[in-house]
Amino acid sequence: MNTKIITFGEVIMRLSPPGNRTMKQSHEMEFFFGGTELNVASSLATMGCDVRHISSVSNDFVGEAAVSFIKSFGIDTTFITKNDHPLGLYFLEVGSSVRASRIAYNRLNGSFAHIPSGQIDWKKALEGCKYFHWTGISPGISESVYNNLKEGLEIARQMGIEVTTDPAYRSNLWKYGKKGKDILKELVSYSTIFIGGVNEINELLGTQFSSDKEGFIAASKELKQQIPSIDKVFDKIRIGVTASDQQTQGRSVIKGQYFETTILEINPVVDRIGTGDAFAAGLIYGLLNFDDEKALKFANAACAIKHTILGDINYCSVEDILEVMNGNSGGRIKR
Amino acid sequence: MNTKIITFGEVIMRLSPPGNRTMKQSHEMEFFFGGTELNVASSLATMGCDVRHISSVSNDFVGEAAVSFIKSFGIDTTFITKNDHPLGLYFLEVGSSVRASRIAYNRLNGSFAHIPSGQIDWKKALEGCKYFHWTGISPGISESVYNNLKEGLEIARQMGIEVTTDPAYRSNLWKYGKKGKDILKELVSYSTIFIGGVNEINELLGTQFSSDKEGFIAASKELKQQIPSIDKVFDKIRIGVTASDQQTQGRSVIKGQYFETTILEINPVVDRIGTGDAFAAGLIYGLLNFDDEKALKFANAACAIKHTILGDINYCSVEDILEVMNGNSGGRIKR
Amino acid sequence: MNTKIITFGEVIMRLSPPGNRTMKQSHEMEFFFGGTELNVASSLATMGCDVRHISSVSNDFVGEAAVSFIKSFGIDTTFITKNDHPLGLYFLEVGSSVRASRIAYNRLNGSFAHIPSGQIDWKKALEGCKYFHWTGISPGISESVYNNLKEGLEIARQMGIEVTTDPAYRSNLWKYGKKGKDILKELVSYSTIFIGGVNEINELLGTQFSSDKEGFIAASKELKQQIPSIDKVFDKIRIGVTASDQQTQGRSVIKGQYFETTILEINPVVDRIGTGDAFAAGLIYGLLNFDDEKALKFANAACAIKHTILGDINYCSVEDILEVMNGNSGGRIKR
Amino acid sequence: MNTKIITFGEVIMRLSPPGNRTMKQSHEMEFFFGGTELNVASSLATMGCDVRHISSVSNDFVGEAAVSFIKSFGIDTTFITKNDHPLGLYFLEVGSSVRASRIAYNRLNGSFAHIPSGQIDWKKALEGCKYFHWTGISPGISESVYNNLKEGLEIARQMGIEVTTDPAYRSNLWKYGKKGKDILKELVSYSTIFIGGVNEINELLGTQFSSDKEGFIAASKELKQQIPSIDKVFDKIRIGVTASDQQTQGRSVIKGQYFETTILEINPVVDRIGTGDAFAAGLIYGLLNFDDEKALKFANAACAIKHTILGDINYCSVEDILEVMNGNSGGRIKR
Amino acid sequence: MNTKIITFGEVIMRLSPPGNRTMKQSHEMEFFFGGTELNVASSLATMGCDVRHISSVSNDFVGEAAVSFIKSFGIDTTFITKNDHPLGLYFLEVGSSVRASRIAYNRLNGSFAHIPSGQIDWKKALEGCKYFHWTGISPGISESVYNNLKEGLEIARQMGIEVTTDPAYRSNLWKYGKKGKDILKELVSYSTIFIGGVNEINELLGTQFSSDKEGFIAASKELKQQIPSIDKVFDKIRIGVTASDQQTQGRSVIKGQYFETTILEINPVVDRIGTGDAFAAGLIYGLLNFDDEKALKFANAACAIKHTILGDINYCSVEDILEVMNGNSGGRIKR
Amino acid sequence: MNTKIITFGEVIMRLSPPGNRTMKQSHEMEFFFGGTELNVASSLATMGCDVRHISSVSNDFVGEAAVSFIKSFGIDTTFITKNDHPLGLYFLEVGSSVRASRIAYNRLNGSFAHIPSGQIDWKKALEGCKYFHWTGISPGISESVYNNLKEGLEIARQMGIEVTTDPAYRSNLWKYGKKGKDILKELVSYSTIFIGGVNEINELLGTQFSSDKEGFIAASKELKQQIPSIDKVFDKIRIGVTASDQQTQGRSVIKGQYFETTILEINPVVDRIGTGDAFAAGLIYGLLNFDDEKALKFANAACAIKHTILGDINYCSVEDILEVMNGNSGGRIKR
Repeated sequence: MNTKIITFGEVIMRLSPPGNRTMKQSHEMEFFFGGTELNVASSLATMGCDVRHISSVSNDFVGEAAVSFIKSFGIDTTFITKNDHPLGLYFLEVGSSVRASRIAYNRLNGSFAHIPSGQIDWKKALEGCKYFHWTGISPGISESVYNNLKEGLEIARQMGIEVTTDPAYRSNLWKYGKKGKDILKELVSYSTIFIGGVNEINELLGTQFSSDKEGFIAASKELKQQIPSIDKVFDKIRIGVTASDQQTQGRSVIKGQYFETTILEINPVVDRIGTGDAFAAGLIYGLLNFDDEKALKFANAACAIKHTILGDINYCSVEDILEVMNGNSGGRIKR
Repeated sequence: MNTKIITFGEVIMRLSPPGNRTMKQSHEMEFFFGGTELNVASSLATMGCDVRHISSVSNDFVGEAAVSFIKSFGIDTTFITKNDHPLGLYFLEVGSSVRASRIAYNRLNGSFAHIPSGQIDWKKALEGCKYFHWTGISPGISESVYNNLKEGLEIARQMGIEVTTDPAYRSNLWKYGKKGKDILKELVSYSTIFIGGVNEINELLGTQFSSDKEGFIAASKELKQQIPSIDKVFDKIRIGVTASDQQTQGRSVIKGQYFETTILEINPVVDRIGTGDAFAAGLIYGLLNFDDEKALKFANAACAIKHTILGDINYCSVEDILEVMNGNSGGRIKR
Repeated sequence: MNTKIITFGEVIMRLSPPGNRTMKQSHEMEFFFGGTELNVASSLATMGCDVRHISSVSNDFVGEAAVSFIKSFGIDTTFITKNDHPLGLYFLEVGSSVRASRIAYNRLNGSFAHIPSGQIDWKKALEGCKYFHWTGISPGISESVYNNLKEGLEIARQMGIEVTTDPAYRSNLWKYGKKGKDILKELVSYSTIFIGGVNEINELLGTQFSSDKEGFIAASKELKQQIPSIDKVFDKIRIGVTASDQQTQGRSVIKGQYFETTILEINPVVDRIGTGDAFAAGLIYGLLNFDDEKALKFANAACAIKHTILGDINYCSVEDILEVMNGNSGGRIKR
Repeated sequence: MNTKIITFGEVIMRLSPPGNRTMKQSHEMEFFFGGTELNVASSLATMGCDVRHISSVSNDFVGEAAVSFIKSFGIDTTFITKNDHPLGLYFLEVGSSVRASRIAYNRLNGSFAHIPSGQIDWKKALEGCKYFHWTGISPGISESVYNNLKEGLEIARQMGIEVTTDPAYRSNLWKYGKKGKDILKELVSYSTIFIGGVNEINELLGTQFSSDKEGFIAASKELKQQIPSIDKVFDKIRIGVTASDQQTQGRSVIKGQYFETTILEINPVVDRIGTGDAFAAGLIYGLLNFDDEKALKFANAACAIKHTILGDINYCSVEDILEVMNGNSGGRIKR
Repeated sequence: MNTKIITFGEVIMRLSPPGNRTMKQSHEMEFFFGGTELNVASSLATMGCDVRHISSVSNDFVGEAAVSFIKSFGIDTTFITKNDHPLGLYFLEVGSSVRASRIAYNRLNGSFAHIPSGQIDWKKALEGCKYFHWTGISPGISESVYNNLKEGLEIARQMGIEVTTDPAYRSNLWKYGKKGKDILKELVSYSTIFIGGVNEINELLGTQFSSDKEGFIAASKELKQQIPSIDKVFDKIRIGVTASDQQTQGRSVIKGQYFETTILEINPVVDRIGTGDAFAAGLIYGLLNFDDEKALKFANAACAIKHTILGDINYCSVEDILEVMNGNSGGRIKR
Repeated sequence: MNTKIITFGEVIMRLSPPGNRTMKQSHEMEFFFGGTELNVASSLATMGCDVRHISSVSNDFVGEAAVSFIKSFGIDTTFITKNDHPLGLYFLEVGSSVRASRIAYNRLNGSFAHIPSGQIDWKKALEGCKYFHWTGISPGISESVYNNLKEGLEIARQMGIEVTTDPAYRSNLWKYGKKGKDILKELVSYSTIFIGGVNEINELLGTQFSSDKEGFIAASKELKQQIPSIDKVFDKIRIGVTASDQQTQGRSVIKGQYFETTILEINPVVDRIGTGDAFAAGLIYGLLNFDDEKALKFANAACAIKHTILGDINYCSVEDILEVMNGNSGGRIKR
């Protein structure tokens, strides 16, 4: 249990009216701490991995509560700093069936956005680390986040650390003047494992591959062509029937070989947020413990079971995920 | 935004144990203000219409809270009076799957039932109004409600206002000595747009048309025959698979022409109450802004999405409804 | 209302985080009193039967609250004693879809486990009784429970009382040194109505019948062969699609004749616990009021509707159950 | 514990926003069943007495839940009937400190108000009864309630049953045409124990005695003079400093002898409603078990401790009340 | 109802763990909309005044919910604009007794801070207005807020509108480069009624008057000297014994004459936030309806009763406040 | 931050109906993890100390949640083992004013009671430790707990570690056959700092000293005489006015010198449980950072402020406690 994994990213608070209520119908909100990279970290720590999360939180009781939450997973918080800006947050109205969920953000002036450039002693932070995980959210938040991340990636590569990335491009970020797609392409070139599919590749490369199997294989080859550091491409496909009924499938291209998992259905969906992060965490765990195909199947099962967990984070154990992977549909009570 | 719509009807409080609990299992109840005509008013106001609701509430803090709630939609409450009788209310135990929901009423001696005859200055109240909406619930509550409504309808027709009606006959009302079906037929004769189907027509006319397409067309023609003021007939069909799984479809007969929408499925249902009112509101909005067919499709989508909203009232915007109408199933998160 | 039914068994408290939350995500738990035999008792009392429950609870405010709860059904509590051990309890994390529910018990050192041998005046307790119901849980808890139960069964048989049993073997009980299967076989030999299927028979007899219709018929015959007191065998089949979607069916072998009900589907499942007890209660009610086939159909409907009720106990009336039995799927609201 | 006590009165539901919230600030309400005479019944049953409550509730799931609640105390509900009118209820906004609590009623057209005259078989109902308790609320609700009560009192007196009364005059009742004070005087003349003070006597007799000790003694004598059936007068004095800080004291005049208890202070007050009923219940228990002076001290302690219990009903045991009576201020934890 | 009052200020959301919980102990938060000037507006609207609030909120469902809340008071929201920045908010941990409450802000980059300069058509907005109220919070938030406010004040004075101000200096604002005290002094010079005491005067003028009566009189005179537009000075004194026990008193200097009210004690305090705003609203109402001394007494009572109301806003009616002013301590229940 | 403190003791779950509700009035319970020694550990960790807690929890999701909670404070959980017995727990009904709180335990057959003798590698566990804290609860739970504790104390003393003890004797423990007072005396003889007063000394030594200052000084001297390892005696005096109003004071005898703090009053009390543990934690922190007198004052302030925190654990920072110590009564809001 001493494979050290490092994640870097915002700690964000989710605020959501209970159940399927709209905000106008509520006087209280449930809150959860999360953040795409922290979700990966928490899930890995729950599976027994040794994880360190790097971030910057608000210097107030909100930030304190966030750090306390992160510690509850046994995650190392030594490299989480504090500053005088508020913790990022978002509001979520949870949809159902034909009604989509809605999100309103308050993050672009938060404590993570204001993390000072050069603040992190990356050599020390990455010591003993085997995997470093980042996503396309972070560099979209602010220039100083981008600077910190880029520095970390450079040093990680120098240290020979495996770098996983979910480089999704979010158009509602990138307000600080940089071109998101250019920067993502730059940062992906420090990475070895690409967690994304045709959409993400098309966005990065400006290509127009189709979403089907052939398109995915072609896109993956083109990615390898243009960004040779990428060894493996793992994709999660979500088929959203309604807000309450979802299907997930994993597929991969590794050394030109295509592989796909069975489709898993989740109905009803308890919470869709963080399911991609559960996939990434499952994948990293799988790569550390299984072969590539089993890793992908494990990742897909982790993604599926996360849909049944409230909040951003996958609280399931390796054993729970293996059961879903092995087709146990949840119909029995475990006594 | 300046098409004035008038609604007249009871403001009623719903009291319901949380989730699927029975009353015996609960120590608290969620409450919601609603009432079939107020639901139409609130939905129209949420869609940006200029709406006035006319009613009478209790002269206590319950009535105050009700009026405050109505104001929150921007609805004009100038013509809501108060009297010393308690606000009408009902208890709801929410079913699930094979278990039906149950309702227990406490409304027949409430403040709306005791609205004095002749209290409303209808000429002033209807000034600038384009649509007046009423339902078959109101005249079933008390004779003074019937008197007020009849007076309003007479003046509305004199002023050339479009009158929409959902004249459902409820057998658990009509305790004050009048024959419900006769009175409904009388009041429908002041109306121009009939929101109802074969059941409602059969009840009104004492006919026995069948529920299928042909029966609906024949019934609509018979209705036009007997009540010539009716220009358009719009029907909502609900196919209740279980308490948790419902399907909705709209159909219409206008100038002898039949039209029907696609079927929309809602699974799981969050709340079934007020879905007919959402249909009526969607229809009125549609008639004001679209052609008849699109109005019907919009009404059906409004009805469908209301099944995902807790409480009596459809909190969805025009944009939300259009997405459902256009087949967006809710599987995406709106960020 | 004057058919007296006696149940004997633990009163146990269920503690469960709200909704689908895990314990780590919660600061509160909903609690419910139940217990497999008490669930049968409560359901029968709700259906209008005259029921007495025999047990032993903690001599503190927890035990007081439990007794108060039992009284709320009108159940006779005269033979419930108190002792200085804590009330048994269990924690439940409620799963959803592909995630199974989990239970953690704290019952083996509770007040029921410590009920003194010989404490119950069975002759007095069973006076006027027509049905006595027991399950395989009780004798697994402690030796003194076993002693009390065995004494009760002997006297019940002497008094010619009908004895129903759901003799499920639970491997996480039976820690006090006796062999569970031997004892269950011994106790079943005091019983006349067997509520169980191929699994239960195989466990009791050490046989290996298959689960299909033929296997069930053969197993039932073998059971009758080995334990001649058994007049009727009633089985509930649960087809657990996922934790949220379940199907139930009843089947029986009586005097060699096989009968089965239609399959009922419940989606979504509100609560799976106590559905077998609802079946047993429905069966006993049915046997008292209907013929065997209708009794089985009623039992299956009771089992189905219990899936829509939170907690351990089936709060539904005879009328509610008959509606489900008659195919009313719950799509209408009862006003 | 087989002294049978009979109470007759409305079963009423209290609905209250949580904590100190106003209704406008709430989306849910806590509910409690109570009613002044039922509160007395429940408290006596909690203290171990054998109690029967006579009333009429709604014939719906609200009425069922009410009866189930009453049964949970072990109270005999055989003489509670049902009719098709809704259960009476009231809304409560709970004040604090300088802000007073507010109540809005919905009871005058409820199921108790509509209890048919002559419905109760009083001879059977009162069989074996030692105490019959009534209050001035009941006859103010409707003429048929008055008729039933009067008949019960006549028969109770014929049977030599002790009759206790808290004949408070409430001006917001008495809408059915009778003069409240005349009727109360008539009904008090069937009573033997008067639970009330100078205000109540002045109201009944039209006198103007002062509230001080001398006034109370004089008033009690005048009452005995005019209504000779009254043997004992017990009064509770409440000194309401603020909504959160209250003081209680008991005093009595028995055969011309004055007695008063010490003052008990309750700060903070959890719930003021039902404290007078807790006094009455404590008094009846005391008269059955102690001498008159100890009975009054016990009643005052019961009244005091009720201020710390949420809802209408005093859930405290005899032992709990004795501790307060003996000056144990609650500062210790009972393990 | 036709005295128009205008308020200008931020609409801010309060998020607070329930009861006295700390954030680390909570998974949900109660939320309330408020803001110092909106609190004044809401209280005045609750008292029956005709009020318009001017602000800028977020262009998302949070902003929509805020506007809906404001409308529920009947406040005119025509001049509330929207922009793409998030709504300001703050977190509150509620203290008790010796533990102080704590606040963490997230407002300096919110939608109100980003209200564009020159956006408001003040001439139109102020039409028919008699009172304009502002506080020292607003100009501390951003330069564009300052610009808007200053423009409004200039026009208000030109139109002869009475301007009330609570010019409290908050050191955790004023991050945009202006000197807070200078700007406040500038803006106070457009005002006619000063709601503040010795601290506020010392801050504005750089003086060092003492807090006692003499100091207050001298400070008020000095203020009039330096800022001649100020006609009246009204001060609220809060004596905070503990977080749960507070005392309030009002005092004033008008044309050199000193007046003070009695001290009102509130124990326990339900919510301290917004009590100063309740004072300001009470004062404005009082000045419109009573003489100056009664206005001050009314303001002090409004301040006191607000301590018993959860959230930022005083939901009390004129009648409620008059009762406190007249010494009714809340010990009675209003039925 | 590198003074290592070790605590050893049960991790226990508290289950409590919300607010002041009794269990009969509730359907849910709030839960908190605590335990007298863990409370000390958590408070010390919150103050920034480096703490390790040693215990044994259940091998199920309840135990997992407990460990996760402990980790959230940054406490080292390396030496917390798991076994197949359920986690200890207790139920609490929270009193108010004159009503005392009540506790019902379920701990004597829990996972801590079943910690195997000899399981802990004390030499390793105590490495680098400066303070070891234990209480009289632990050895009362089971013989194996006693054995483990005794072994730890022996090694701690060999290693020269400061040993603090709160050796309270609880009569509802000690069911396993040992004489509690003898064992406590034996274990105290391994301790250097005695946190207890006259009661505790009298219990240990069988003496009868009085509770006043003189008695305390004499008792402390006698304790030093009989158990020479004790260097310092620190006592907390609680004056429980009512369940809602408490006063605390600290006093000490060190080298024969008496010292006492001022009295601090807490009204209203939010939670009394864990206030003694907050005292002990404050004392240990104080001894590490201040002189003895300031340590005692700090401990008393920590005890006082804990009364305002829900749950077993003092979530306050050093700064919060210093404010109370310095007489800041909590009347201000910290922004």
